[in-house]
Amino acid sequence: MASNSSSSPDSARRSERSRRSIYDAAIALVVEIGYPKTTIEGIAARAGVGKQTIYRWWPSKADVLMEAFLDLGEQTARTAAQERGTAEDGQGGPQGQGIPDTGDLAADLKSVLRATVDELHNPAFEAPSRALAAEGVVNEELGRRFVAKLLEPSLQLYVDRLRSAQEAGDVRPGIDPRIALELFVSPLAQRWLQYTGPISYEYTDTLVDYALGGIAPR
Amino acid sequence: MASNSSSSPDSARRSERSRRSIYDAAIALVVEIGYPKTTIEGIAARAGVGKQTIYRWWPSKADVLMEAFLDLGEQTARTAAQERGTAEDGQGGPQGQGIPDTGDLAADLKSVLRATVDELHNPAFEAPSRALAAEGVVNEELGRRFVAKLLEPSLQLYVDRLRSAQEAGDVRPGIDPRIALELFVSPLAQRWLQYTGPISYEYTDTLVDYALGGIAPR
Repeated sequence: MASNSSSSPDSARRSERSRRSIYDAAIALVVEIGYPKTTIEGIAARAGVGKQTIYRWWPSKADVLMEAFLDLGEQTARTAAQERGTAEDGQGGPQGQGIPDTGDLAADLKSVLRATVDELHNPAFEAPSRALAAEGVVNEELGRRFVAKLLEPSLQLYVDRLRSAQEAGDVRPGIDPRIALELFVSPLAQRWLQYTGPISYEYTDTLVDYALGGIAPR
Repeated sequence: MASNSSSSPDSARRSERSRRSIYDAAIALVVEIGYPKTTIEGIAARAGVGKQTIYRWWPSKADVLMEAFLDLGEQTARTAAQERGTAEDGQGGPQGQGIPDTGDLAADLKSVLRATVDELHNPAFEAPSRALAAEGVVNEELGRRFVAKLLEPSLQLYVDRLRSAQEAGDVRPGIDPRIALELFVSPLAQRWLQYTGPISYEYTDTLVDYALGGIAPR
């Protein structure tokens, strides 16, 4: 939105700088004092902008925070991809453009979940994500917004990948992809949210194997 | 602990009454003002007892709350069992003595998960459980305590049931039961915690079928 507020290059640069300061301030405040106490006024003061600047671009603090989080997700995915030294531009993970389709469903799911493990271990991502997730648990309106804006788009990438696997005959025809993806995504989410167990590549690889093959004898 | 503080029947009754008031006050406060602002002093004032009474029985507010929650879980399981009109005494659910072993693994898992769906829909259980779960997301020490005291004992009942299924040949020998249970427990937990989707018997039945049979063709 910020980049549309003016057409001159200078003011676009200023807007971009303000937008970045506002995102940083919003994330920092929600980590330090929690979502309920974070206000548009507080974000404006910390970012060094007028609160009208924020109201011009976003209707509420929840909207500022959601966009700040989307931006943070893109940044951390980009950083993680660089650290892995891969050719990805940070859009290869579940936050990005899609899940790879090499024809090997297990390998594709494992690689995306490994990238998610890296992201969950990234300290820049952890504190703000936990702060927003915790608020979503007790604040249904925010929780649903969080899901719609941040979580569901990523989950739909798994739906797409499972649908193409279904067409390729690698997933049974009667399976609902939106439920099937939860067999490997939700265990990782719960271990992260509730500290129910350690998170590793070995663990997410195992989840994919169990989900695809089932735990009952074949 | 309360019942051990005296051997006379009268004082045992008084202790039991105090213990109940303290649990109720602790649960009410964490729902109304959240975990961080709930204090031993506040619980004592609301329960109408001296704070020394609380300190005599519990070392910290986290300990009071965990016991209050254990008690709440037992109460809601009992109530749900009564509402279902079953012969269970409330100890049949995952919070209780064990998971039924009728020899039909799918049916046994589905029945326990259906009871959990009922529990999650119980309003007396929902608000306090959400308040404590939310705090556990951002407070690792409390989160780990929550898991150790409240969650892991229930999960171990699934481990036991899956082990006996393994002995009966209904679960593959190489499967780790502690991970396998997450294929159906964690999706339900995530839908409840994060509002990622509706919760129903049909949903949990589907999770059990997918987890046992796998989503890949057999």
